[in-house]
Amino acid sequence: MNMYDIISKTKRGIELTAEEIKMMIDGYVKKQIPDYQLSAWLMAVCFNSLTEEETLALTLSMRDSGDVVDLTGISGVTVDKHSTGGVGDKTSLIIGPVVAACGVSVPKMSGKGLGHTGGTIDKLESIPGCQTQVSFEKFIEYINKTGFSIVSQSGNLVPADKLLYALRDVTATVDSIPLICSSIMSKKLAMGADCILLDVKMGSGAFMKNTDDACRLAELMVKVGKDAGKKCMAVVTDMDIPLGKAIGNTLEVIEATDILKGRDKGRLYELCMELSAYMLMLAGKGTKEQCLKLAQEAIDTGRALEVFERSVAQQGGDTSFINDYSLLDTATVRYDVCSVSEGYITKMDSEVIGKASLALGAGRVTKESSIDYTAGILLEKEYGEYVNKGEKLMTLITSTKCDIEDISQKLIDTIEISENKPQIRPVVLKTVE
Amino acid sequence: MNMYDIISKTKRGIELTAEEIKMMIDGYVKKQIPDYQLSAWLMAVCFNSLTEEETLALTLSMRDSGDVVDLTGISGVTVDKHSTGGVGDKTSLIIGPVVAACGVSVPKMSGKGLGHTGGTIDKLESIPGCQTQVSFEKFIEYINKTGFSIVSQSGNLVPADKLLYALRDVTATVDSIPLICSSIMSKKLAMGADCILLDVKMGSGAFMKNTDDACRLAELMVKVGKDAGKKCMAVVTDMDIPLGKAIGNTLEVIEATDILKGRDKGRLYELCMELSAYMLMLAGKGTKEQCLKLAQEAIDTGRALEVFERSVAQQGGDTSFINDYSLLDTATVRYDVCSVSEGYITKMDSEVIGKASLALGAGRVTKESSIDYTAGILLEKEYGEYVNKGEKLMTLITSTKCDIEDISQKLIDTIEISENKPQIRPVVLKTVE
Repeated sequence: MNMYDIISKTKRGIELTAEEIKMMIDGYVKKQIPDYQLSAWLMAVCFNSLTEEETLALTLSMRDSGDVVDLTGISGVTVDKHSTGGVGDKTSLIIGPVVAACGVSVPKMSGKGLGHTGGTIDKLESIPGCQTQVSFEKFIEYINKTGFSIVSQSGNLVPADKLLYALRDVTATVDSIPLICSSIMSKKLAMGADCILLDVKMGSGAFMKNTDDACRLAELMVKVGKDAGKKCMAVVTDMDIPLGKAIGNTLEVIEATDILKGRDKGRLYELCMELSAYMLMLAGKGTKEQCLKLAQEAIDTGRALEVFERSVAQQGGDTSFINDYSLLDTATVRYDVCSVSEGYITKMDSEVIGKASLALGAGRVTKESSIDYTAGILLEKEYGEYVNKGEKLMTLITSTKCDIEDISQKLIDTIEISENKPQIRPVVLKTVE
Repeated sequence: MNMYDIISKTKRGIELTAEEIKMMIDGYVKKQIPDYQLSAWLMAVCFNSLTEEETLALTLSMRDSGDVVDLTGISGVTVDKHSTGGVGDKTSLIIGPVVAACGVSVPKMSGKGLGHTGGTIDKLESIPGCQTQVSFEKFIEYINKTGFSIVSQSGNLVPADKLLYALRDVTATVDSIPLICSSIMSKKLAMGADCILLDVKMGSGAFMKNTDDACRLAELMVKVGKDAGKKCMAVVTDMDIPLGKAIGNTLEVIEATDILKGRDKGRLYELCMELSAYMLMLAGKGTKEQCLKLAQEAIDTGRALEVFERSVAQQGGDTSFINDYSLLDTATVRYDVCSVSEGYITKMDSEVIGKASLALGAGRVTKESSIDYTAGILLEKEYGEYVNKGEKLMTLITSTKCDIEDISQKLIDTIEISENKPQIRPVVLKTVE
């Protein structure tokens, strides 16, 4: 069996064996199989898909292409969460402290994010002094002390995914559900946590644009996770409208802090409570109702905020912003975007808002780009709210040179306002156990 | 528009413009587009196919990637023929002289063949002294003198096809009808003849295994040929059973000579008369019936044999074999394969016979392999004939060390003999004008 036969089998819809898949991934990482054969195979997968067994074999082969993190130094059960990306997703900053406050460890290793507003690491690093590049020993020590820490991924984790993703990115082979599943799950499995909650975002601001695809991805990931020996659940959540009111790095840190203080109990709070409850359920803390109550109490008693503060402090961060947001909110330009008509907001596209915050300087275009931590967007009105003509819709915030009028105009052009109040979907669209 | 967008469009079934296709082919030949992007695109084409307009644009871009032969130095109309390959296909050696004897020039440039029994160039070079590597001026001179010459392809013809074919060959993307069409037609168009007859072989010994695919390929090639300004026709011919009685280089030269002498008027003769008639029709020599009569007369009067003899001689070949086949037939080993039962031959698989002759030394496994010109197979009994137990079915001939008993056994295992006489299909299954 050689790579030609492997391509040919997938092309003809014949299932590959686990051995064949392992041979392919090992050979590719060792540069024995050329890019042009892998890319032909990837395109065949985009058309013919892979079976569950093939996806599991691919995920395990990818996981085993590098190191697997050993979290046995952490006392008690460990829970990890993964979101498939989205605009303004600061949930990790909230649910990590909430779950840790309930006695379950949340060890998180993240990569720097490409995209509209950077990744969780970038949000943390927007806090003055906060270090995310720490040794593995320190990371374990932090978790054992506070139950929660987010650090930059180190070590040689899943090199196969880095290679495959770079190839998929230039050959139009990203949007295949089994390939997305194996990319996410190989990394989650290599991270070593006992339990994994998967948050599959669905909608215009997310990678999965429709519910069917999002559910298929969620089901496949849970199946693969369980077959690999983990406790695993998934939720499909709405990303048609932005998550919370802030998009941007320091802006999202401030919003997360407000949620942890119990000041904001809107849609973002609701989602964080749901996600925290499922993570606690996976860790064996009780029924859904019991776990939801635990999570809410962690906020209401201030214990979650305390975990967050201790976690930022132990990574060197200056926590004084918690009581004085103006220390973080130092942008030089604030620009109001006002409504040109009156009525209910019936469309406020996440993807368009994400691109606008990228244009304001909040994200990275290439891995080498630097980020304007202060840049972003504050939504003054939410989807479904009533707005008068001339009333402020949002504020564009930046310290970076950019064509702010053009950015504003593009946003206005895509916001739809109508006479009728639109229906608002629940935050969690589906649960996969 | 960049290569990523081109891959993505074809993947989503969106038609490419001629400009996009030209950009892709030019960029690939100039090594500005990497193999891994091209192979992903090729795989997407295997699944989504290309439209007629895309196939035409691809063919023309490939043709224009290198030189286009200028045949204006040849007086009168020129006709080219292409067969899509097959086992024991020596038709070029017969119909070239026949058509030339009727006053129409047949300039032929061929590449060395990979495969079961080499290519037409190899068959010619199996005649002692016969040179096929000649200058372009000599080639034109030969055609103007005798009306017929086959030489090795020289110059930089269709470099895009060489690159694309090499890539398709290792990425399981060979079997796509528009890709096969553009590969064949770009070369035929670059060869510069006024008229092109396409012989699409169909059956187990050919590339097209079923009639539908063969007809689709034939129709697409004719459409592309006409749109490119050529007179063009195609025939779909049967290759389920081998063509003629000889498979191998010198063996096929001898068989072709016998046909040109008018000694053998079987199925191979019949096909050659049909192909010659269509070539003459394309050149404006009259109706199908008139042209068929012209072709038959070229054999019966000995004029076709004369053209063949003069053509071999002007390329330095020793023509004395024409009257003494033993000069060519110098193999050291002859091995009889006999029937193990009695009845009618109902299966005699071309592909199996082709592989057997390759094993005997008659073809090339890689471009560097040398050929045993004497090696091959003589069929003593044909498909549909009655055979007694112990009677000779075929003779294996070679001067090369090989496991001849194993080759014989494999052949016996695949020949089927039954009580009922099978139906024999017509040689020409379909004509596309």
